[in-house]
Amino acid sequence: MKVRVAVNGYGTIGKRVADAVARQPDMTLVGVAKTRPSFDAQRAIAHGYPLYVAGGGSRDAFEAAGLPVAGTVEEMVRASDVVVDAAPDKVGKENAGRYQAAGVRAIFQGGEKAEVAEVSFNALANYAQALGKQRVRVVSCNTTGIARAASVLTKGFGVDRWDVTLIRRAADPSETQRGPINGILPTFTLPSHHGPDVRTIFPDLAITTTAVVVPTTLMHVHVNHARLTRPPSDAAPVLDAFRGTRRFHIFSPWEKVDGTPQVMEFARDRGIPDMMENVLWANGLRLDGPDLYFFQAIHQESIVVPENIDAIRAMFNLAPDAATSMAITDKTLGLGPPSR
Amino acid sequence: MKVRVAVNGYGTIGKRVADAVARQPDMTLVGVAKTRPSFDAQRAIAHGYPLYVAGGGSRDAFEAAGLPVAGTVEEMVRASDVVVDAAPDKVGKENAGRYQAAGVRAIFQGGEKAEVAEVSFNALANYAQALGKQRVRVVSCNTTGIARAASVLTKGFGVDRWDVTLIRRAADPSETQRGPINGILPTFTLPSHHGPDVRTIFPDLAITTTAVVVPTTLMHVHVNHARLTRPPSDAAPVLDAFRGTRRFHIFSPWEKVDGTPQVMEFARDRGIPDMMENVLWANGLRLDGPDLYFFQAIHQESIVVPENIDAIRAMFNLAPDAATSMAITDKTLGLGPPSR
Amino acid sequence: MKVRVAVNGYGTIGKRVADAVARQPDMTLVGVAKTRPSFDAQRAIAHGYPLYVAGGGSRDAFEAAGLPVAGTVEEMVRASDVVVDAAPDKVGKENAGRYQAAGVRAIFQGGEKAEVAEVSFNALANYAQALGKQRVRVVSCNTTGIARAASVLTKGFGVDRWDVTLIRRAADPSETQRGPINGILPTFTLPSHHGPDVRTIFPDLAITTTAVVVPTTLMHVHVNHARLTRPPSDAAPVLDAFRGTRRFHIFSPWEKVDGTPQVMEFARDRGIPDMMENVLWANGLRLDGPDLYFFQAIHQESIVVPENIDAIRAMFNLAPDAATSMAITDKTLGLGPPSR
Amino acid sequence: MKVRVAVNGYGTIGKRVADAVARQPDMTLVGVAKTRPSFDAQRAIAHGYPLYVAGGGSRDAFEAAGLPVAGTVEEMVRASDVVVDAAPDKVGKENAGRYQAAGVRAIFQGGEKAEVAEVSFNALANYAQALGKQRVRVVSCNTTGIARAASVLTKGFGVDRWDVTLIRRAADPSETQRGPINGILPTFTLPSHHGPDVRTIFPDLAITTTAVVVPTTLMHVHVNHARLTRPPSDAAPVLDAFRGTRRFHIFSPWEKVDGTPQVMEFARDRGIPDMMENVLWANGLRLDGPDLYFFQAIHQESIVVPENIDAIRAMFNLAPDAATSMAITDKTLGLGPPSR
Repeated sequence: MKVRVAVNGYGTIGKRVADAVARQPDMTLVGVAKTRPSFDAQRAIAHGYPLYVAGGGSRDAFEAAGLPVAGTVEEMVRASDVVVDAAPDKVGKENAGRYQAAGVRAIFQGGEKAEVAEVSFNALANYAQALGKQRVRVVSCNTTGIARAASVLTKGFGVDRWDVTLIRRAADPSETQRGPINGILPTFTLPSHHGPDVRTIFPDLAITTTAVVVPTTLMHVHVNHARLTRPPSDAAPVLDAFRGTRRFHIFSPWEKVDGTPQVMEFARDRGIPDMMENVLWANGLRLDGPDLYFFQAIHQESIVVPENIDAIRAMFNLAPDAATSMAITDKTLGLGPPSR
Repeated sequence: MKVRVAVNGYGTIGKRVADAVARQPDMTLVGVAKTRPSFDAQRAIAHGYPLYVAGGGSRDAFEAAGLPVAGTVEEMVRASDVVVDAAPDKVGKENAGRYQAAGVRAIFQGGEKAEVAEVSFNALANYAQALGKQRVRVVSCNTTGIARAASVLTKGFGVDRWDVTLIRRAADPSETQRGPINGILPTFTLPSHHGPDVRTIFPDLAITTTAVVVPTTLMHVHVNHARLTRPPSDAAPVLDAFRGTRRFHIFSPWEKVDGTPQVMEFARDRGIPDMMENVLWANGLRLDGPDLYFFQAIHQESIVVPENIDAIRAMFNLAPDAATSMAITDKTLGLGPPSR
Repeated sequence: MKVRVAVNGYGTIGKRVADAVARQPDMTLVGVAKTRPSFDAQRAIAHGYPLYVAGGGSRDAFEAAGLPVAGTVEEMVRASDVVVDAAPDKVGKENAGRYQAAGVRAIFQGGEKAEVAEVSFNALANYAQALGKQRVRVVSCNTTGIARAASVLTKGFGVDRWDVTLIRRAADPSETQRGPINGILPTFTLPSHHGPDVRTIFPDLAITTTAVVVPTTLMHVHVNHARLTRPPSDAAPVLDAFRGTRRFHIFSPWEKVDGTPQVMEFARDRGIPDMMENVLWANGLRLDGPDLYFFQAIHQESIVVPENIDAIRAMFNLAPDAATSMAITDKTLGLGPPSR
Repeated sequence: MKVRVAVNGYGTIGKRVADAVARQPDMTLVGVAKTRPSFDAQRAIAHGYPLYVAGGGSRDAFEAAGLPVAGTVEEMVRASDVVVDAAPDKVGKENAGRYQAAGVRAIFQGGEKAEVAEVSFNALANYAQALGKQRVRVVSCNTTGIARAASVLTKGFGVDRWDVTLIRRAADPSETQRGPINGILPTFTLPSHHGPDVRTIFPDLAITTTAVVVPTTLMHVHVNHARLTRPPSDAAPVLDAFRGTRRFHIFSPWEKVDGTPQVMEFARDRGIPDMMENVLWANGLRLDGPDLYFFQAIHQESIVVPENIDAIRAMFNLAPDAATSMAITDKTLGLGPPSR
């Protein structure tokens, strides 16, 4: 008996989650909901996904564009076991009551506050906490990236304190209205909200985050400086720990990956133009006594996609533990096993 | 008996041509040649393509990176019926003698001068001229885009004169060393070389081109103003002519495709992160008496890929005409039939 | 007796016009009006300009920031002979009635429709038409650039037809909220509105314009192709005509000005970080029979500034003709005489 | 008796230092040396600076461009008491021997290694160490920015440890050949070289630096996290210490300065399109117990200019201490006194 999954919102995250759900052996995609017709609505149809009209949208507008409509978002919700809410930030909170009224479980994204759900989730970090839950929040792209790294570091080496500077992409590739075109914008919340958000998963982690916004669309980059409580004698065991963990991809110097442009080129070459793993560089990690420095690049568009899938599996007890769920998810999404 | 195709050079164009060759029912990919190891060399291995060491490259460097080497570029050439030369501009000319000495046919790219080959080629425009040829040059991305449009306009409506302003992308997505970051650079050759290059295919076309370079990596955009000799009474027949021709993709206003960022988003959604068709907009084409105005966007990385495939087919008489070859090529590459 | 000039709106254009007015021997700056305090309001104070509270603004907000307020915009208007309206697009139209009610003359910017004023103005093109007028509209930056070039070409060589492709900067340098960051956006009005706007000054000019928006903040670039009715035998007389006209700056090849970044660097070096002249390149102009091709770069922030000054002079008969007014304006603004 | 100063190299730094020297009451600008003619060479002439031919340059090339040449760089050096070497990185080292052979003192820029000079210099930090010296190195823009902040923090509050993440601009505004256009490039030296470079001035400072390169031309931004040894009870005294120190400019929230674009707009409005001060934001500084977080923006083109002037004054004992020299420099360059 497959879990029936609906995706409410068909933007950057929603369309990727829908594609991912459609590939899972233990899930059925009920459909996707969108407010207005556009080229990506047409893609939903081309993929064979039933298309429902969301929020303030009009059935006529879709039909005028030649896009068949399967029904309203309410109908979609009622036909589902769980809704992945991929609506714009803060709209998810408004939707929460409707899901509950319909007796349907829900997954929210990181743009919503933690209070919207019973648990904030990252597969590697706290899969078990989501087992059987009704409402789960998959943390944001940056928090997901940090939570994965925190899983590796806290387990293997201990973290005494950790500073992360987030170099944030200013817009997604197709968000043509957002700037800046030339300039750097500090995020004036000091420290930034990312640290507290990580602590929704790692309550005791001594992490401090700061952020700036820069004119690029590809990926975020995190500059990390962590002091380890149980540092190895050299960097190799740390690098090996990342290499041996799912959803980390480590580039070697000979691969000539200078930065985020080549990372995304690698992703395109791989046949999925997304990079769902944390990206590290072997020569972008250094251990100096207890002080660990490393860069990681985070693809804002896709990194949370496998996490949404694992969250569904936890909520419906489709897999007993993170390792089992992640292995299925990664295989279906074309992500490799850990490189060692 | 399949035609044995080698690809010399495994950069932006070479890797795409190799992928395309590997999908053809009437061709075999002998292998690809690359000078230095890098992440994309690894991709060649992952795809199962034999990897040969090109030019001044060292076998040791590849093997140190764990990349198995199939042999030298000379060995690859000798095992082939035809080499697609995708080396950097001007290197193709140096290679030409080697191919000839080995008795192997060759395809060159548009960065080489027309003299390198017997014919400059565009499938839609002059497929028949390449039948049985030894050396064919596939014209550059911008010239390919114009040649396709010229095929439609000259055949259907006649062109009295035609001005094209090319807004050129300054770098490919992974070329991190190229600028400008903020500014517009005129191309001081007036008119630009693109007009004469189009005339290697349409010798009598009264076309004039000018160009500027702008800080984007995604696509070129052509701004066209053509005076037609046999204009229809309104724009619909022109739009229909483009819609009814392979390798044109026309966006409608309701699709909300503001510019090149959404075009490439559409391409990613389609599952091939490339846009091998000329892209037009229904609301970006206007006929005013005999004066036709239209925009077209050209994906510099991929538009010539199907043309390379068709050129091979013409050279080896694998298909009798353009329509037959293009239908096979487009189907294997995931491009749809004409939309009407 | 100096003309009393007020500037309503203290953004990109307003602050430059205020500075320019303050330098004129025959004008007095009554003050500037701004809605909200910000760093540039402080600059107004530092320059000694009386600061008035515009539109929905609050005196308290300015005073809380330590910025002394001279009064309301209504008070400023009443103390003036003429108001230069540099409010955001379309707000000027709303203001027009207030100026008229106060019996004060007004200058509007090109973001307003032509109907807002008695005449659309460019100093070189139609100074005389603004003599003694009550309401004058200084055309937009792009239209100003074209109108200047049209003055030179129509007078000296005749224009049979003229195509301009405008490569538009997407945002001003400090507009951090505007994109796109990476991409080209066609302007889907075909032809664009610039041609008709030029005809508010040159009613019979056979000009056609098209436009795209690109991710840069520095300048617009126009790509021109004009067919001349009285072409000289080579390009030299055309270049000389531009060189001999005020508000044109022509770069020579040895100056190594590749594009707009070096143009603005030149401007900074000159000590005014603005480029109020049309910028041409000697090697970016070519005559081919009757066909003239040339690039020109237009600084969107400042090119209309001297035109506003000349418009005031025409309205109040402070100078009998364009040449007299432009000479005063250019000298006070640090612009050189024509280079030959 | 004024000190005779020559400037060898007339690029981004050289031209600004020349302008600054020309404004000093106790210095004479002997001239500037440049290799090739270009628009900025012409500016040197316009400013009345004698122009000498540097390195591999040709007098003929300058004269063909109509630029009068005063002599060779050797002649310029011999006529000087001190040369400010503003040649490209690493060329300064080659020049050092020539200056010494000519018996002339020299100032080098931060692109040279510390060994090129007797002392690495920052006015606020170690003016006295340069008194009477023959060869002084003004540290790079980023190091200058950090050294200034270190002067304030070490003196007032003590620094236990300090992490700086440098978000570096990829190119200067007129460097049209440098990328990336869209992407973030980590600097793989971990920690980066900036920390050790700061220790050429503050040998005992426990500072660690990391860096990324981003697609902007305006300014660098430093993200700082310092643990203070003598923290005040709230942030006010720290902000006041910065406000009370020359060459710091602190923006308040009401000024609406979102990031580097508005900072440079502020600079343009001020009449010098440069920002020679460290830029901080009152709302971009926070003290949390002993942990101080703050952003600072650093204008790579101009921040070292006043430092070069002060270095000359120290070398020739023209001012007894930093405060005296800096006051003269700042006044002549149009920089205000400390804001409190």
